[in-house]
Amino acid sequence: MGNTANGLINRPILASIHTEAFRHNLNRVRELAPESKIWSVIKARAYGHSFDAALKGLASTDGFALLDIHDAVWLRERGWKGRILLLEGLFHENELVLTHELACDLVVHCEAQVEWLEKFKVNTHTPINVFLKMNTGMNRLGFKPDSYRTVFHRLHAIGYHMHHMTHFANADQVDHPPSVGAQLELFEETIAGLEGSTSLANSAAILWHRNALGDWVRPGIMLYGASPTGLFSDIEHAHLKPVMQLSSEIIDIQALEKGERIGYGGRYEAPEAMRIGIIACGYADGYPRQAKDGTPVWVNDGAKNGGGIICPIVGRVSMDMLTIDLRDAPNARIGSKVELWGEKVPVDTVAQMSDTIGYELICALAPRVPVQIV
Amino acid sequence: MGNTANGLINRPILASIHTEAFRHNLNRVRELAPESKIWSVIKARAYGHSFDAALKGLASTDGFALLDIHDAVWLRERGWKGRILLLEGLFHENELVLTHELACDLVVHCEAQVEWLEKFKVNTHTPINVFLKMNTGMNRLGFKPDSYRTVFHRLHAIGYHMHHMTHFANADQVDHPPSVGAQLELFEETIAGLEGSTSLANSAAILWHRNALGDWVRPGIMLYGASPTGLFSDIEHAHLKPVMQLSSEIIDIQALEKGERIGYGGRYEAPEAMRIGIIACGYADGYPRQAKDGTPVWVNDGAKNGGGIICPIVGRVSMDMLTIDLRDAPNARIGSKVELWGEKVPVDTVAQMSDTIGYELICALAPRVPVQIV
Repeated sequence: MGNTANGLINRPILASIHTEAFRHNLNRVRELAPESKIWSVIKARAYGHSFDAALKGLASTDGFALLDIHDAVWLRERGWKGRILLLEGLFHENELVLTHELACDLVVHCEAQVEWLEKFKVNTHTPINVFLKMNTGMNRLGFKPDSYRTVFHRLHAIGYHMHHMTHFANADQVDHPPSVGAQLELFEETIAGLEGSTSLANSAAILWHRNALGDWVRPGIMLYGASPTGLFSDIEHAHLKPVMQLSSEIIDIQALEKGERIGYGGRYEAPEAMRIGIIACGYADGYPRQAKDGTPVWVNDGAKNGGGIICPIVGRVSMDMLTIDLRDAPNARIGSKVELWGEKVPVDTVAQMSDTIGYELICALAPRVPVQIV
Repeated sequence: MGNTANGLINRPILASIHTEAFRHNLNRVRELAPESKIWSVIKARAYGHSFDAALKGLASTDGFALLDIHDAVWLRERGWKGRILLLEGLFHENELVLTHELACDLVVHCEAQVEWLEKFKVNTHTPINVFLKMNTGMNRLGFKPDSYRTVFHRLHAIGYHMHHMTHFANADQVDHPPSVGAQLELFEETIAGLEGSTSLANSAAILWHRNALGDWVRPGIMLYGASPTGLFSDIEHAHLKPVMQLSSEIIDIQALEKGERIGYGGRYEAPEAMRIGIIACGYADGYPRQAKDGTPVWVNDGAKNGGGIICPIVGRVSMDMLTIDLRDAPNARIGSKVELWGEKVPVDTVAQMSDTIGYELICALAPRVPVQIV
């Protein structure tokens, strides 16, 4: 059941995905990490942007990194001949034949995965690339340094092409342990003398820890034009472009008198007579229910130069609608276009007003929102 | 791109939708509102549960209420012959012919919609049911009482079958204006002497305001077994069953030493040597990133009677994973099943630990999570 059955789009909400912004952001990664190859991270339907758009916009990447083997199947069916990295490797032993046929590179992070690979008869004509994951302080996936070299040698000895990988816990901030420096030092000490390429840097490291890039960088959030820290101010001068624009329209206007309240719980009370715009976008579209009063929405109020005005949210976001203060937009009317996030309203600003980060919002774009790739 | 391509499910996450629970909850609505007909609200892919499951589990409803005309098309294609209500009516004039062909009932909430209906030539053999929406204090959609009767007569005079509708802002709480009583009084005063059936009550009103049911009730969240208030304690004795179970597995275990930290930002510091379970579920699956340390996860630790144990989240939820404290589950191992929400962990409890309500979580179930209808 799609939103464009019969060619008819009825609810005016739309997510536009700008493939040119993908290209721009990928080039920006190349500028920042000119010596490295790039795993473009496209898990979670390319962070909510659709795989179609990612394949189109990021076609010049060296490889795609993702989670689900089905997404690797799809990439191969769509003709992608470059590298594919399964970021969490195998979930079950029975996936090994298929991943081999698909020529996927595998992350290996736990003993069970090592044993599955040991049982598998490696064809030396089409070797398997393994990115062995070291836990240097993230304490999520991977082998601690004291067991890492042993595992490396077990797989190396039977013909796997071995590479080294770790993940930073705090590349986006300086005041929490473990530091990038500490993790990097542990990583380099542990792999000393071992062959194989390295992969370390996420977006935050690419932007702010240029000493920790390694042979393959793994940009995720920066490809989508959002901030690794969740704060737009941190990437304001990083020359990234937002890829997703979420837009909708005003579908109704209420004239409130002083003292009247809006929506569930009556959170907002009109301080004077005022117009309220009702927007066709709610938390069941992926807009955060936690958005506070004051969260910005851009409204095209009819200015001829395409200009518009920021109007603040007033009242609690409901499932299918949200409400904005139109006092500064006297020309706004039913049918006026609005941007919920995109170029005019950074997704990280909406996230910040909702106590989360842009990552969560773009990933949470709901299936009912039509996606247009431009 | 589905998660079951080639019959292979790799990431172990799964949403199971229990159609028997749908039937149970619908019967519960009938018990509470025996004199009313039921619009089962299934917007937003049935609050994330899939239309397929809703159609199967709620087949004995009197009608389905939804937003998107495409979903009405789908229901008719699947053989649904009962009533369908478009909860926000038409978004564009050009949808009118199709909605008429589909025999949809229409909400009318703004002047533009009235004008579209006035231009449309009504076929008196297949009249259109209009639920005219009155704004009695929600201040979102609808006509204020002072214009309501005029609009009613305009449409009634040209042959539309007219009904009356409003929506409560605070049926789930008693301490915020406007009250259910005030909204109800305004509604009844305004429609006095007019023909047509009424529709007022959402789930909260069905549960707690039995004087405000009207001819057609509109249960939403209670059909899914979650709480209108967002607090599980408020429905603990309401005899509702959760319809969605979100489950996954432990995919890795880390042995931490005292003082080591977990995940991004190192939010949690191990107070002693301890085991941490890594679960294949993150915010890109729809689990809330805001979940605090202590949010419960049920773990099947191998007890023979199917028993299990609640383990608390420790450390920040990341995109594809979350981490739990396994100190109370010494038998848990890689592959152990976990429930993120469902019968053992109410979705509202997870929501409460994340500063939101169950509604938002079930609606936000990500497309990458496979859905199994049972």
